[in-house]
Amino acid sequence: MKKVAIVGASGYSGEELVRLLLSHPDAELSAVTSRQYAGQMLGEIFPKFGHHPRARTLRFSEPKAEMLASQAEVVFLALPHGVAAEYAVPLLQRGCHVIDLSADFRVKSLAVYKEFYGHEHPAPDLLGQAVYGLPELYRAEIKKASLIASPGCYPSSILLPTIPLLKAGLVKPSGIIADSLSGVSGAGRKVEPDFLFVECNESARPYGVPRHRHLSEIEQELSLAAGLPVTIQFTPHLIPINRGILTTLYLAPEKHFTDAKGMNELGEKITACYEAAYGHESFVRLLDAKTLPDTKNVAGTNILEIAWRLDPRTGRLLVMSAEDNLVKGASGQAVQSMNIMCGFSESAGLL
Amino acid sequence: MKKVAIVGASGYSGEELVRLLLSHPDAELSAVTSRQYAGQMLGEIFPKFGHHPRARTLRFSEPKAEMLASQAEVVFLALPHGVAAEYAVPLLQRGCHVIDLSADFRVKSLAVYKEFYGHEHPAPDLLGQAVYGLPELYRAEIKKASLIASPGCYPSSILLPTIPLLKAGLVKPSGIIADSLSGVSGAGRKVEPDFLFVECNESARPYGVPRHRHLSEIEQELSLAAGLPVTIQFTPHLIPINRGILTTLYLAPEKHFTDAKGMNELGEKITACYEAAYGHESFVRLLDAKTLPDTKNVAGTNILEIAWRLDPRTGRLLVMSAEDNLVKGASGQAVQSMNIMCGFSESAGLL
Amino acid sequence: MKKVAIVGASGYSGEELVRLLLSHPDAELSAVTSRQYAGQMLGEIFPKFGHHPRARTLRFSEPKAEMLASQAEVVFLALPHGVAAEYAVPLLQRGCHVIDLSADFRVKSLAVYKEFYGHEHPAPDLLGQAVYGLPELYRAEIKKASLIASPGCYPSSILLPTIPLLKAGLVKPSGIIADSLSGVSGAGRKVEPDFLFVECNESARPYGVPRHRHLSEIEQELSLAAGLPVTIQFTPHLIPINRGILTTLYLAPEKHFTDAKGMNELGEKITACYEAAYGHESFVRLLDAKTLPDTKNVAGTNILEIAWRLDPRTGRLLVMSAEDNLVKGASGQAVQSMNIMCGFSESAGLL
Amino acid sequence: MKKVAIVGASGYSGEELVRLLLSHPDAELSAVTSRQYAGQMLGEIFPKFGHHPRARTLRFSEPKAEMLASQAEVVFLALPHGVAAEYAVPLLQRGCHVIDLSADFRVKSLAVYKEFYGHEHPAPDLLGQAVYGLPELYRAEIKKASLIASPGCYPSSILLPTIPLLKAGLVKPSGIIADSLSGVSGAGRKVEPDFLFVECNESARPYGVPRHRHLSEIEQELSLAAGLPVTIQFTPHLIPINRGILTTLYLAPEKHFTDAKGMNELGEKITACYEAAYGHESFVRLLDAKTLPDTKNVAGTNILEIAWRLDPRTGRLLVMSAEDNLVKGASGQAVQSMNIMCGFSESAGLL
Repeated sequence: MKKVAIVGASGYSGEELVRLLLSHPDAELSAVTSRQYAGQMLGEIFPKFGHHPRARTLRFSEPKAEMLASQAEVVFLALPHGVAAEYAVPLLQRGCHVIDLSADFRVKSLAVYKEFYGHEHPAPDLLGQAVYGLPELYRAEIKKASLIASPGCYPSSILLPTIPLLKAGLVKPSGIIADSLSGVSGAGRKVEPDFLFVECNESARPYGVPRHRHLSEIEQELSLAAGLPVTIQFTPHLIPINRGILTTLYLAPEKHFTDAKGMNELGEKITACYEAAYGHESFVRLLDAKTLPDTKNVAGTNILEIAWRLDPRTGRLLVMSAEDNLVKGASGQAVQSMNIMCGFSESAGLL
Repeated sequence: MKKVAIVGASGYSGEELVRLLLSHPDAELSAVTSRQYAGQMLGEIFPKFGHHPRARTLRFSEPKAEMLASQAEVVFLALPHGVAAEYAVPLLQRGCHVIDLSADFRVKSLAVYKEFYGHEHPAPDLLGQAVYGLPELYRAEIKKASLIASPGCYPSSILLPTIPLLKAGLVKPSGIIADSLSGVSGAGRKVEPDFLFVECNESARPYGVPRHRHLSEIEQELSLAAGLPVTIQFTPHLIPINRGILTTLYLAPEKHFTDAKGMNELGEKITACYEAAYGHESFVRLLDAKTLPDTKNVAGTNILEIAWRLDPRTGRLLVMSAEDNLVKGASGQAVQSMNIMCGFSESAGLL
Repeated sequence: MKKVAIVGASGYSGEELVRLLLSHPDAELSAVTSRQYAGQMLGEIFPKFGHHPRARTLRFSEPKAEMLASQAEVVFLALPHGVAAEYAVPLLQRGCHVIDLSADFRVKSLAVYKEFYGHEHPAPDLLGQAVYGLPELYRAEIKKASLIASPGCYPSSILLPTIPLLKAGLVKPSGIIADSLSGVSGAGRKVEPDFLFVECNESARPYGVPRHRHLSEIEQELSLAAGLPVTIQFTPHLIPINRGILTTLYLAPEKHFTDAKGMNELGEKITACYEAAYGHESFVRLLDAKTLPDTKNVAGTNILEIAWRLDPRTGRLLVMSAEDNLVKGASGQAVQSMNIMCGFSESAGLL
Repeated sequence: MKKVAIVGASGYSGEELVRLLLSHPDAELSAVTSRQYAGQMLGEIFPKFGHHPRARTLRFSEPKAEMLASQAEVVFLALPHGVAAEYAVPLLQRGCHVIDLSADFRVKSLAVYKEFYGHEHPAPDLLGQAVYGLPELYRAEIKKASLIASPGCYPSSILLPTIPLLKAGLVKPSGIIADSLSGVSGAGRKVEPDFLFVECNESARPYGVPRHRHLSEIEQELSLAAGLPVTIQFTPHLIPINRGILTTLYLAPEKHFTDAKGMNELGEKITACYEAAYGHESFVRLLDAKTLPDTKNVAGTNILEIAWRLDPRTGRLLVMSAEDNLVKGASGQAVQSMNIMCGFSESAGLL
């Protein structure tokens, strides 16, 4: 049993990490921190964990890197951007493995980081050793890493469907549009008027248009896949569900098809491409030709669903994906990375 | 007071027509039909109207054209596609004004109708006299019409934001993408598993991809505005709200901008274009530069909200709209057409 | 046109007052106050009112009694408990009519007020002149009043169904239980974690058990009706709807029935009692024997629905009511009082 | 590994059984039946199970008792009332263990069954051997049973909180009121207008008043606990959540308390009573004095939460419970019974 700690365990990602780690067969939750709740029992603050024996003995503590380093071998950082790096540095120095769920180590370029996050990077020296924690792409690197930059919720839903197609040269790297719908937990446990029940219920609205911060990591990874700089259009929307991201991608096939035969040939290539990329993956579900993604079918799971359609009228390729923003989009993916890094079964605690 | 009737008053559009017409200052609801509820009192079937005196005397009747023609001067058809035409023919012959909320008279081309609706047009002779009931576009024609083909819910949310830009030559007619989110009432009162509460709640999903029937009327009207055939990409999604459509449009400016100055100039033209088209309209709300559309701000009203953003990173123009699919997307718009046709104040019963 | 002002126009009750008063035929909204939004245009803060000409000229102002007294003849106070009284005193002195939506003037007993609200009454001298603004009960007094204490949302849903039965001696004044379900807007626009979307959605929970503040006014009015001190059991629950209160009342018939005949006789008396009390009322809907109340049938309206059932197995009388907590439970009822007080049609602006 | 089958696997209880049994460590899902889907793959009909290897090989079959008896040792019946018995008889004859989720074997009295279900009991001979599958009450009997009558969703939420108090003589057996709120999945996957999204969303409504069928089993078990015939008042309400039942119980303490001391003494007895009954139970969570039940804290789990409050104003005891109607209220409880009956760990597959 590996001892693991969660820094910032009272937000939605932190709470979801608690859920997953409490029942993880190879990990023991040894510390949870929260400034607000320090001293209180885990089960008191989150009654839903009250039946778990650990929740009746484990108390929230103040987040102190030194202490944490003595309590855990793996530390998850579920902290705001900019704050996470402060903990990563001392924890790594003391030999911990760190899995950061914030954006602090996702973007390799200091300039891009500053452009999107509005301040200098807090720990540029560590950027080189951080691995982007998308297991389906960087499994080998994650295995050897000590610092994981776990991806954002939107990026997971966009990158997994797009990258195999880009790598295979099946779609053009230009003109990509990603239109995403997110559940309200994606905003975190932010106590702001916009996220009150009455303001979200019976509401559908775009936000962060046209330049959401997640673009920085999305474009970085798409550019790596395409081998050239990629700029995309990304529009997030808020819809009244607790969990889930539904992304619709508008892509242009590299080779234009003009008839049914051309469409079929392209379709077969797409099928083969996805099958090669994800046919063996535990957490990517390729849907059959009759089925479209639905967030309710992935809620509470670490699975990302993908479906696609070629449109003979416009020549475009539509790819649609669904994931749980708190699981495959955050905490589940972070646990998946931990499993790989620690040599556990990759799906341990995630099925 | 004009006598008006609703054929098919038990579906969601019909029920919304009842709501609007019961409190309309110039109209008297003289007949409501429903095969299922014939003989029963309006207020029994819809307790929510029970406080209205009319709901305690008016009974649902069987839909019979002859009888209706003697009861009403204006007849709304809130019937399924294909069925509406059967009523339109005899009602028009008997001198009624007919406002059809189905798709039967929206598409001018018999071939396109057949392609999208799967059967021959039921009343081709009437197509010539039908006016597409989008008042902001066809006000003069509606005034003189006796047969109105009231637009679909998605088309309203796409056409109103797009047509002025196309007419002004500000955006390219090619490559248009419309990504729409719809509340569940958009499916009508269909008793099917897909629309059960448990299947829709906590769910977000695309459907009808890639060829939704509303494309036929959308492309017809965009083509008329552009002066050449327009093909668009349209992706509807179902989200768990009762009412509302949120549409995000991806458009390419006709003249590419390369710097802030170019962007500002284009922005001013767009502002001027929308102001000219809708600045004086009662039911189109042009949002200021800080505000984005939200379905909750139009629910229950006949208003369509529009906002737009130029994206300097991609060169695209994003236009977003919100409407209530049952009001501006259906019954409210139909009443607006009635008001124009009958010489009432255009906003009578709609504010 | 009477000039009216709203103090505290940015909360949910205040916003609902804005909605109702903007389209009121006899009232002109001359001032809206909000500390937070002072200086900003009504239509900027609430885009949903943006289509109304008044919303494009009226700005939020700081709440200053002197100024308000010069701007309006009727002033609505949509302020927290304890704060409202501070405004009522100077406004009344300056000759305004005041309709207070807080609890400040609802409870006649200073001791009970202190027991339930935890502080001394802020303006005991005014208590004598305040009229409890439940029009169906105190219409004559409201007509002559200058200070209205508009009832709480739960009280309206409990008092209207219970008082006629108590007055008629049909039910026992002891042992009454009121079990209520409330939509989240009932909590006001409180930016607290408990009212975030994610915390309310997919949640049903009791709260404020066993001593909610509204008990003070409920028991005061029930005691007046019964002619002796009444203590009741009241359990509020929070459920994931925006608007609506559904109350289920458990009552003991004064005369126990033992057979079908006795039950029928009692049933006829109940029917007659309700018919006499509310048969002529515009805003109470007595449901037929086949129909039960449903919050969706009253949402957005000033109507309270009532249904009842005698249970031959237990001998109890169940009475169920539904209302919109923001309309009949707050702002609509306040406007109804204004209509009576000012000599307008009682239903002006409410249908 | 025990082979298990589900008859009626396409309803909500059946689907939840699939979810639980697919990941059960000691059970192998060997057959799932559905008239509607016979021949189709489990993963095709329920994409959400698509990642599980079993869902890619197991097909729905026609429900045939003989065949099932050869495929499984334990058979779950997730069928409508009246139909389940038809399968129970031949399956038991062929040596299967049967766990019936319908009401067919819950009520011991043929007369009561007929009174509440409207037809003669379909298999009276089996009633004697059926055990009511509430493990916290009948663990020893379940261990030896071959036919389990798994309790209804409402009964679980009422019986578990009430029975220990009745047995300990702490509350009166007369005058009990149970007021319950249920999520929409409680209605099953019934394709009826009342359960459409638009009809349930933004709606709260009582139904089945005043004589719901579940009263028969509730009163049977309460009578057994009290040692005398018990009649209760039970009011179910439908609220817009997918899963969950929240029950509020109004109870009269056997010994009336008159002061704080008396209240404290009674409180200690209640605490001790619940602690003795459930302190060691895996699936009953006794909440601390600061916490009230919330359906969101039990959704997806087999846990029932209980909290209670004494009201010094009325002398009543309020007990509140929350459960997931599909898990502890149906399929989870059925699996818990299977675990006991088969000698597995009682919580296998349920944590």
